[in-house]
Amino acid sequence: MPSRPLRVAQAGNDATRLREFAGYAFAAPALLAQALTHRSAGSPHNERLEFLGDALVNQFVAEALYLHWPKADEGALTRARAELVRESALAGLARELKLGEHLVLGPGEMKTGGHRRDSILADALEALVAAIHLDSGFEACRAVVLPWFAPLIEALPPPNKVGKDAKTRLQEWLQARQRALPAYALVEEGGDDHARIFRASCTLAEPAVHTEGEGSSRRAAEQQAAEAALRIIEA
Amino acid sequence: MPSRPLRVAQAGNDATRLREFAGYAFAAPALLAQALTHRSAGSPHNERLEFLGDALVNQFVAEALYLHWPKADEGALTRARAELVRESALAGLARELKLGEHLVLGPGEMKTGGHRRDSILADALEALVAAIHLDSGFEACRAVVLPWFAPLIEALPPPNKVGKDAKTRLQEWLQARQRALPAYALVEEGGDDHARIFRASCTLAEPAVHTEGEGSSRRAAEQQAAEAALRIIEA
Repeated sequence: MPSRPLRVAQAGNDATRLREFAGYAFAAPALLAQALTHRSAGSPHNERLEFLGDALVNQFVAEALYLHWPKADEGALTRARAELVRESALAGLARELKLGEHLVLGPGEMKTGGHRRDSILADALEALVAAIHLDSGFEACRAVVLPWFAPLIEALPPPNKVGKDAKTRLQEWLQARQRALPAYALVEEGGDDHARIFRASCTLAEPAVHTEGEGSSRRAAEQQAAEAALRIIEA
Repeated sequence: MPSRPLRVAQAGNDATRLREFAGYAFAAPALLAQALTHRSAGSPHNERLEFLGDALVNQFVAEALYLHWPKADEGALTRARAELVRESALAGLARELKLGEHLVLGPGEMKTGGHRRDSILADALEALVAAIHLDSGFEACRAVVLPWFAPLIEALPPPNKVGKDAKTRLQEWLQARQRALPAYALVEEGGDDHARIFRASCTLAEPAVHTEGEGSSRRAAEQQAAEAALRIIEA
């Protein structure tokens, strides 16, 4: 990769001057500047850091879940990790840290609102984690990063429910009570060719429950209907 | 999970007595015994440890590659990591450590040669890594585990070639020299219904090269032919 020191002028862009972020003070602020630089703004950008940070986040979260749920099986741990490290979850953490305000983007990405895009925010968060790790080592990095995930870990559903979709949870609820399985039906299909809307129903025999859900696919509509049924029977 | 202290008697099974493995002496040998116990032999088995070890191995390898290839882009790093942490690579390391000899398996898995199976060996290797981590922390674990991967990292092809299949590498070789792309043709299709054999040819205009390859699918046969062509033009 050629090193192109191109830097895009941006109102309020302070990435090259920042020394501290999210309560962590960098010994090498150049690492922080790199973590906050999207590839659209030239090199050095944050793609290599993102590769390293992805593995670090995965490891921090895996270990935290292992300790948090001493009895959970591998399947529950794997599903919980997927919930915590998925793009939208990482982007949510990035927003809490106001990371978007400090991102350095190329003009095209700036115009199209790249600093608010989930993928760019999640990648930059991972890059930031790698930058802290390279700046001060694994243990110090974990001490900074784990508290970001702690509220998400606390908010997880129990191990036997985490990461399972509504249809699966509804089926398991009924099977555990030896009840008949739900019947799903397509109620309506409409919308434009490019934006179809499906409406599906979910009917239980016992307890007698009938719900409907809507979505951009038949499957999504059924999940909505199952979710509504779960809310009724678990209330 | 209920704790079932079932332990299967096995000739030469010393997992519950081992204190040291692969040059690492455990402060808590119970962790080692658990890492070496497959779920077919009862609880506590190594599935939770495998979950944690998978993340650790991923992180050790990601960091080693990041440092080993300071100029490689994210794509090359990702492909190289996939090569190093894939099941067959981990199983190969497990065999070098003679891990199979110490595995504790249930009677069914023992009869069917489970201690030689890639998936079981790779899982146990990951569990062993987690056991070392829990026994003495991240830095000590990395110091034990990274040397296992060092020869594999040294043996990687260059970043721009790693993890790319033969047809891709051949195409890139030709495009870099502005030569015509290869022509693939199916030469023969035979074998039984359940074990088809395909034979494909690869023809280059310049240099004039004609090779053939065989495989269980047309694609596999073409890859073999491309590999043969690469060996000729790169010789």
